[in-house]
Amino acid sequence: MSPERELSQRLIMSISESVKKLHIPKGFRWGTAAAKIKRAGRDDIAILYADEPVSTAAVFTQNRFCAAPVALCREVLEAGGGKTQGVIANSGNANAATGEPGLANARAMTVAARAATNSQGRFLVCSTGTIGVQLPMERVAPGIEAAAAQCEATADAFEKFAKAILTTDTVEKMASAEFSLGNKSARIAGCAKGSGMMHPNMATLLAFIMTDVDISPALLDECLRGANEKSLNCITIDGDTSTNDTAILFASGKSGLSVIKGSESQRLFEEHLLAVMQSLAKQLARDGEGATKLIEIHVQRAASFEQARQAGLAIGNSNLVKTAIYGRDANWGRIVCALGYSGVPIDPDKVSVQLGDLMLYNEGAPLALDEDRALEILSQDVVIIEVALGLGDESATVWSCDLTEKYIEINGSYRT
Amino acid sequence: MSPERELSQRLIMSISESVKKLHIPKGFRWGTAAAKIKRAGRDDIAILYADEPVSTAAVFTQNRFCAAPVALCREVLEAGGGKTQGVIANSGNANAATGEPGLANARAMTVAARAATNSQGRFLVCSTGTIGVQLPMERVAPGIEAAAAQCEATADAFEKFAKAILTTDTVEKMASAEFSLGNKSARIAGCAKGSGMMHPNMATLLAFIMTDVDISPALLDECLRGANEKSLNCITIDGDTSTNDTAILFASGKSGLSVIKGSESQRLFEEHLLAVMQSLAKQLARDGEGATKLIEIHVQRAASFEQARQAGLAIGNSNLVKTAIYGRDANWGRIVCALGYSGVPIDPDKVSVQLGDLMLYNEGAPLALDEDRALEILSQDVVIIEVALGLGDESATVWSCDLTEKYIEINGSYRT
Repeated sequence: MSPERELSQRLIMSISESVKKLHIPKGFRWGTAAAKIKRAGRDDIAILYADEPVSTAAVFTQNRFCAAPVALCREVLEAGGGKTQGVIANSGNANAATGEPGLANARAMTVAARAATNSQGRFLVCSTGTIGVQLPMERVAPGIEAAAAQCEATADAFEKFAKAILTTDTVEKMASAEFSLGNKSARIAGCAKGSGMMHPNMATLLAFIMTDVDISPALLDECLRGANEKSLNCITIDGDTSTNDTAILFASGKSGLSVIKGSESQRLFEEHLLAVMQSLAKQLARDGEGATKLIEIHVQRAASFEQARQAGLAIGNSNLVKTAIYGRDANWGRIVCALGYSGVPIDPDKVSVQLGDLMLYNEGAPLALDEDRALEILSQDVVIIEVALGLGDESATVWSCDLTEKYIEINGSYRT
Repeated sequence: MSPERELSQRLIMSISESVKKLHIPKGFRWGTAAAKIKRAGRDDIAILYADEPVSTAAVFTQNRFCAAPVALCREVLEAGGGKTQGVIANSGNANAATGEPGLANARAMTVAARAATNSQGRFLVCSTGTIGVQLPMERVAPGIEAAAAQCEATADAFEKFAKAILTTDTVEKMASAEFSLGNKSARIAGCAKGSGMMHPNMATLLAFIMTDVDISPALLDECLRGANEKSLNCITIDGDTSTNDTAILFASGKSGLSVIKGSESQRLFEEHLLAVMQSLAKQLARDGEGATKLIEIHVQRAASFEQARQAGLAIGNSNLVKTAIYGRDANWGRIVCALGYSGVPIDPDKVSVQLGDLMLYNEGAPLALDEDRALEILSQDVVIIEVALGLGDESATVWSCDLTEKYIEINGSYRT
């Protein structure tokens, strides 16, 4: 292993073990304010921007009822040729299913953010919260000015930003990494809210990731899409794909470390970006509404990554699997049942299922259940399900959480 | 309206209003016994058979992990050229994911039922309950003999049968109809357990329907498939498609009323069969695990029935919609959100959504919400959601139920 590779390994380890030791990329600042969109007193406006227009890539919800901010983001990115200056976000209101007035409000937010920060480039916009209610623009506009006035390029400011975008989340989600190539080092830092990308819960997953590598918009887009497939697109909370899901990646270039297509620099950057995004994905799933456990599903021996993920998402999305794990019930029949309707061409005689290291179903044959060992495994905070499909050599990991009474309580009275 | 048509109308009305006034078809008998497969003391073996081999049609789960009884039923139906003598069923154990021994046990059940009833024709077999556990054949075999010895051609026996197949159901589900053509009358009676066909809950939906019309196996199959698409395939409880779902229709011919392809007799039979099966579908959804409300979703102005149903199932299957209705929260954003990810090519500007008679979202524009009226509608036992897609002239109705803490409680400890 080269010294560089060794260093990169060490830094990846530091991500999962110390989320709070933030590696803040150069060239960005963050600011927040309280505009009484959500509960009074809590920050609900968040702004982040770069010193000048920078390479920007984004992925959005596949929901056809996409919110006004999503429609506008697509327009801004295209108009700027992949360069923007930052993003203005609010929590408490999704600005979705709000028609023409909603689109006008989203546009007004970007204009206000650009003016308040004296920016040369355009702004993206993200909203999260209740669907179908117009934004209180009389409070949002001054909120944007207040947030812009607070902006700082510090870890503290980044943490406040991560907090201001939350809705029903119980903790902020942050991850960062640092890596070196030659005599230059670069950083990636991200934060997120919500609980899913393909299958998020409330109205929205938002993820904002910043890096100071120097990279073209096109290559940045390629790197984001690749990492997204194996991170945010591998989590599920409740099968509801939101109207607002957005993940944005900004690259300021301020580290001086250039990422070149096809070189070691791209490999290193992608590796660290994936580590940051997978950390965020796991933090999101673990904080699923009402959840008490993180469920990690490893699907192996699939014909393709997509097939493995599809099988994993069917398991991770099954209310019956999720309630069984909540109840510490080793009802593995529900796991094979979910595989059976996943749409994957399952051959039951080739499938094996393990709970942690406990084999439950081996190539078509159910095994006698060691109830004590199963209970021990199911009593842990992280429950690992191992599935082998016997259809090929590809694999995927999917993250979900258990389904509890608390989820019902939260979602039975979200607006009230 | 012809007198016959009028009679048929009157009888369809009697189905939904008086489920318990059973129209028992001629030529069948039912028997039950307790074999301690489920909780001690409750009947868990149920047998139903005709006087001789009769036309039989069936539809099964699409789950690739289909249970041993499903695999065997397909074989029996094919071998008998669409004629069987009856079905042996058990609750408490699904005989799914049980490998070769499971298949041998299913076969042994059909052989035992045939012997115990002195039947000339073959038997189908259905099982429902926990997945992945072998049947206690030492108790099942004597149970089948005991059930066969109890068999009677009465409404009481039919009701006991309907009760013996239940698992987590809280009430039995039965519906029946009678109709006449010329000077002959015929009957259709059905019972069911579980909560879904495309999206059932526990391990299994089972439906058994008997009629005394005289009909060929091929035409019976056609009629069952048609009615099934608009009844059992239009309900969803939790998106989990079971390993065992089975609906079987037997026709004894004992009424002397012949159903001829393309004639008024086919139209009349199909109309009444659909009414019986839709009644069962609604009863199943209403009794979804932990449910307090029936949700009826009318999707109109779709390009096709399939499209309308797909949109309706996305709504009916959304945990967020289901919890909102449980919490009497008119959070209609969750309805449009579900439409947006349903896979239907939605144009948000053409969509309208009503809660009962209260318009919430009209062709792209959200309306001011009358909270008092919404709360009134959401406080009823049956909540009706009306959706117009603006994509065509076809429609579908889908039935679901709300999602409550009780669902979590039931499914967090199903096996214990």
